[in-house]
Amino acid sequence: MTTTYEQALHTFKEKIKQIKSYDEALGVLYWDLRTGAPRKGVNTRSEAIGVLSTEMFKLSTSKEMGELLSQLEDSAASEQLSDIDRRLVAETRKDYDRSVLIPPQLYQEYVVLTSQSESAWEEAKEKGDYEEFRPYLDKIINYTNQFIDLWGTKATRYDTLLDQYEPGMTVAELDRVFSGLRDKLVPLASAIAASPHQPNTSFLKQQYAKDAQKSFSLFVLEQMGFDFQAGRLDESVHPFATGLNPGDVRITTRYLQDDVTSALFGTIHEGGHALYEQNIGEDLIGTTLATGTSMGIHESQSRFWENVIGRSRPFWERYYGDLTSRFPGQLDHVPVDDFYRATNVVAPSLIRIEADELTYNLHIIIRYEIEKLIFNEGAKAADLPQIWNDKYREYLGIVPDSNANGVLQDVHWSGGAFGYFPSYSLGNMYAAQIADTLERELPSFWQLVGSGDLLPIKQWLTERVYKWGKARTPSEIIVGATGKPLDPSHLVTYLERKYKDIYKL
Amino acid sequence: MTTTYEQALHTFKEKIKQIKSYDEALGVLYWDLRTGAPRKGVNTRSEAIGVLSTEMFKLSTSKEMGELLSQLEDSAASEQLSDIDRRLVAETRKDYDRSVLIPPQLYQEYVVLTSQSESAWEEAKEKGDYEEFRPYLDKIINYTNQFIDLWGTKATRYDTLLDQYEPGMTVAELDRVFSGLRDKLVPLASAIAASPHQPNTSFLKQQYAKDAQKSFSLFVLEQMGFDFQAGRLDESVHPFATGLNPGDVRITTRYLQDDVTSALFGTIHEGGHALYEQNIGEDLIGTTLATGTSMGIHESQSRFWENVIGRSRPFWERYYGDLTSRFPGQLDHVPVDDFYRATNVVAPSLIRIEADELTYNLHIIIRYEIEKLIFNEGAKAADLPQIWNDKYREYLGIVPDSNANGVLQDVHWSGGAFGYFPSYSLGNMYAAQIADTLERELPSFWQLVGSGDLLPIKQWLTERVYKWGKARTPSEIIVGATGKPLDPSHLVTYLERKYKDIYKL
Repeated sequence: MTTTYEQALHTFKEKIKQIKSYDEALGVLYWDLRTGAPRKGVNTRSEAIGVLSTEMFKLSTSKEMGELLSQLEDSAASEQLSDIDRRLVAETRKDYDRSVLIPPQLYQEYVVLTSQSESAWEEAKEKGDYEEFRPYLDKIINYTNQFIDLWGTKATRYDTLLDQYEPGMTVAELDRVFSGLRDKLVPLASAIAASPHQPNTSFLKQQYAKDAQKSFSLFVLEQMGFDFQAGRLDESVHPFATGLNPGDVRITTRYLQDDVTSALFGTIHEGGHALYEQNIGEDLIGTTLATGTSMGIHESQSRFWENVIGRSRPFWERYYGDLTSRFPGQLDHVPVDDFYRATNVVAPSLIRIEADELTYNLHIIIRYEIEKLIFNEGAKAADLPQIWNDKYREYLGIVPDSNANGVLQDVHWSGGAFGYFPSYSLGNMYAAQIADTLERELPSFWQLVGSGDLLPIKQWLTERVYKWGKARTPSEIIVGATGKPLDPSHLVTYLERKYKDIYKL
Repeated sequence: MTTTYEQALHTFKEKIKQIKSYDEALGVLYWDLRTGAPRKGVNTRSEAIGVLSTEMFKLSTSKEMGELLSQLEDSAASEQLSDIDRRLVAETRKDYDRSVLIPPQLYQEYVVLTSQSESAWEEAKEKGDYEEFRPYLDKIINYTNQFIDLWGTKATRYDTLLDQYEPGMTVAELDRVFSGLRDKLVPLASAIAASPHQPNTSFLKQQYAKDAQKSFSLFVLEQMGFDFQAGRLDESVHPFATGLNPGDVRITTRYLQDDVTSALFGTIHEGGHALYEQNIGEDLIGTTLATGTSMGIHESQSRFWENVIGRSRPFWERYYGDLTSRFPGQLDHVPVDDFYRATNVVAPSLIRIEADELTYNLHIIIRYEIEKLIFNEGAKAADLPQIWNDKYREYLGIVPDSNANGVLQDVHWSGGAFGYFPSYSLGNMYAAQIADTLERELPSFWQLVGSGDLLPIKQWLTERVYKWGKARTPSEIIVGATGKPLDPSHLVTYLERKYKDIYKL
């Protein structure tokens, strides 16, 4: 019996290592495609990606994997597993069930559909023609409903989708936290819009030399404790972070000549994701647990570093000189406080990815409510433009002039990623809750930021969040880090404190 | 019967596509490791490479592949195959047999040995201590002899090794061409050394700005017809070229601040390899025939572009102004002919990779003769330093001061790559023979070079060499391109004509 268990565990871990190797190889292939792979090789490359993805899927869903999981879940075997191995078995079981429950033929159809759909979406967005995209969206909703049926409905149908990106998250929980947020942020945004004390941002729009921007981005990453022996910074049209393994975490940014903050905050944001991936515990390396535990927790780290730290007054009191000295004569007449306020402008806008730290959450709540309507109330693709526009009017006081700036703006739905959007606001809420704990547990927190001593903060986050990787669930992480479950009041308090000061409310 | 054949062909081609996909993925992983992958991720990356390599090996040597090959080699089936498919079957059979003839256990031992041996070689070379490396080399020779036994001895034992890198090449043939070369080049090198007309090279050693060097390298690549939509130029410590697929061919170079020609000729050399890979016929894409037909033919293209074109007087008459204008004030006083002569200095030297176009061949002949002694005459690792030094004295008139600059200088033997060295000189001979044909078939050949009109030359090479990929054997290529088999007299004539002029002999 013992031998069988040990053999099963050994074989299981070999399989996991293989899966992880495919995952790493695919990660490099995608990174390469997005950072400068020659255009003419893309088709052949896509085929290679297809071959490797298929093989990885086969490894994850093989009959042998199913049998190994059953053996290791057997109560006698399970008792002998280490905590990490038990968690690895549980996570693998979850992926396994999710995959094998979908008939291969159905999944194949869906893959083809989403690939066509993403092209259709791109074209429709360019023309602002929702009707061109609508049939695809209807089909994707239809397939997703079939998947929910196969996977099984949790408390509500939409709960089944949420669980993909934020394990354990529910509609009941999100309704609670988002309603708390919405009720506070809508009036706060209105008060800000009405304030006579609007920051001056004119000086942000100058020609800023790319080399100097890059040098400052690299400097800030280094200050955050980004390990350049275990990662690199490149350029891409859409910035992203990818953790191939904790020793190789890559981020990208995009330099805009006429905007000094875009690449910088993009770098800090991706740098936050990178710190998480670089500091995952050594005991998890080579396993599928060596990654972030959820999209929401991952996003909490990018947003903590970008917004809580990077858009704070102490941060700029420390680093403004390092910025201005790189652009001689360009910012000399701008006091640090003006600069700080300019990086924190709040204004209702139509486009999510350009939104400020406050109204961003309203963009997310709108998408969350629409996704709930689709999967829990049967809303159809044809209904969405109207619903979209109504909600923008209600929450942000503005209405898109075109569907391109409205319901067509995001790529997510065209790829079937329903349930993903809430992660972004969960990230903001987790980040504020973590910052609240940090303020209490590291009494010198803001002094550390103000003196550029960021490594103790990174160290604290490593102990509470990073090192656990996927070996703890999102709720275990947030309780472990802050002592209590998700509480949206911290984000409200943080935003109120910050913006009442900036806008003199 | 027909159905079976068609099914077999379809399945076979699917397998080939899979193998090629793994090959491309591994190519990207290696390229990435050599162009800036973070140091701390290397171990995990190596494991991923191991997993993918193993899978690729399994695909190539599976029982199913053996059966498919037998089915397609059946005379009735074989007749129905297109020329390309028949060639694909033959090439796959060759790899298959070569692989399955070695027992997995033996191969596994050999892989471990060569990996240890490469480390041992590196250390031994650093210390100049041959004795540290000798036991490894003995073992590698021993394993290689076992492989020869398993693969079967061709005309001589060493023939079996040559065939790996230059299919169809024999000891008889190499003895013939190398003796012709050696007998002419040894006295020519002596005459050059004795000439009072040594080129002045002092101006090459200045500080040359890297950006300007890079700009010139990119400009020359563009002039050669390198397609930047199907390739890229990066930097690495050891320059290399890798053809992932004809739409994605990557080369690297290395910029030395104090040498304006090193990166340039490195770029042109790798650019020659790249032109080959970029212009392989579309009918071969996605198959394992979409690569160069042999190391020798590949090397002929890098050396044709680097030496025949890049180190020619017409080339510099056309491009010298483009070079000097990038380094204002640094070369203004140097006449183009002085520059041309400085890039063509001939001098006996100890290190192969630093050798000039002429004496390089003597370095290769020495290695060829030693490898023959090992495998056909039973020479042992212990004998090699003495043999090495004796041959350097005889052919180049100099003797290494240390084994580090002698028998330990090359990595090849530590990795078991016996039979590879001749490819380099084969490349020189093929290149000169092709140049001879070009001079006759494109009467304006040197005018084209002199006017910077290089694309007709690239086009000619595409038709005669590049587009065939591995669908023709090396001898088919050279006969197809020049109308006759390999003839070393062209290299002799080319070198004599060039150096008698430069050294006024």
